[in-house]
Amino acid sequence: MPRYTKTDFPVDNVRRFLEPGPIVLVSSAHRSETNIMTMGWHMIMEFQPSLIGCYIWDANHSFELIRRSRQCVINVPTVELAPTVVKIGNSSGRNIDKFAEFGLTPTPGEQVRAPLIEECYANFECHLVDSSLIRKYSLFVLEVVKAHVAASPKYPKTIHYRGDGEFMISGENTRKYRKLFKPEML
Amino acid sequence: MPRYTKTDFPVDNVRRFLEPGPIVLVSSAHRSETNIMTMGWHMIMEFQPSLIGCYIWDANHSFELIRRSRQCVINVPTVELAPTVVKIGNSSGRNIDKFAEFGLTPTPGEQVRAPLIEECYANFECHLVDSSLIRKYSLFVLEVVKAHVAASPKYPKTIHYRGDGEFMISGENTRKYRKLFKPEML
Repeated sequence: MPRYTKTDFPVDNVRRFLEPGPIVLVSSAHRSETNIMTMGWHMIMEFQPSLIGCYIWDANHSFELIRRSRQCVINVPTVELAPTVVKIGNSSGRNIDKFAEFGLTPTPGEQVRAPLIEECYANFECHLVDSSLIRKYSLFVLEVVKAHVAASPKYPKTIHYRGDGEFMISGENTRKYRKLFKPEML
Repeated sequence: MPRYTKTDFPVDNVRRFLEPGPIVLVSSAHRSETNIMTMGWHMIMEFQPSLIGCYIWDANHSFELIRRSRQCVINVPTVELAPTVVKIGNSSGRNIDKFAEFGLTPTPGEQVRAPLIEECYANFECHLVDSSLIRKYSLFVLEVVKAHVAASPKYPKTIHYRGDGEFMISGENTRKYRKLFKPEML
């Protein structure tokens, strides 16, 4: 299991790690229960406030925990956690405690009761700020209120789902196209 | 410029190419005008119908073309097109014809008037099916009505934006975690 030393990160720049489209783990807590789910359907919706839209199926056990507590944590796992990510997505919190079952360490958040997953590269504490699209689209609009990111490496090796059990692993990171940007577009 | 031979692809499986989170090019047409924009904020929202949510800023010239025509094409570029993708994102269709300026070939769609970009790996013809979230969130809910995907390679080498002029290039593709899935989760 990877161990990362994390520091505070500006909430309005979480696109750095989410816009490339990695699979994430969403942790939640409500009353005495906690859970973790695997999520691939998410997008940045705004910088300030730092909004993220994500699809959570109502058959997922996490659906009610997040809807009722109005909180969750988006955790960014790296490739070492890939088998765990798959196992989390293929089991239900109705039957097991996923932290215990998969040997993950819950860490207290600062702004939410939902636990952070210590073994992930980054943890984004979120409030549910708009629940009006849940019924029609299963769309949760979240605001990142606190971000913790590993001090190193600079670029996490993330996993990206293609469906049918296939993943793309993130590759090279490059600044070589940066000179083609207008200053105001950076 | 890459040249791809494309075949029809099932619209309910476009997640294969969009869920990993690549930067895409969105082409549009309204009356006598066409345009192309670069887009990084998008997510899968449903398989059947094949729904995609995407954020289009109202300052983009494409915003009105798509809102009024209620159509567009999502094109998936590969790494060879990276400089073109950046230049498209750093110029405005108010001033130039981006197809001509960047040497891209418009190809007729089957279900939409918006042109497909021939040099892209995949082209997804879309209808705007819900415009009710545009005012509040700049969120366009699109339905993919026709999909064209290159016959080879099996996995495109896509580009994923991190902000600040930096990109991640897609890396290895793997089926090695597939055995950890329950059959009904594939």
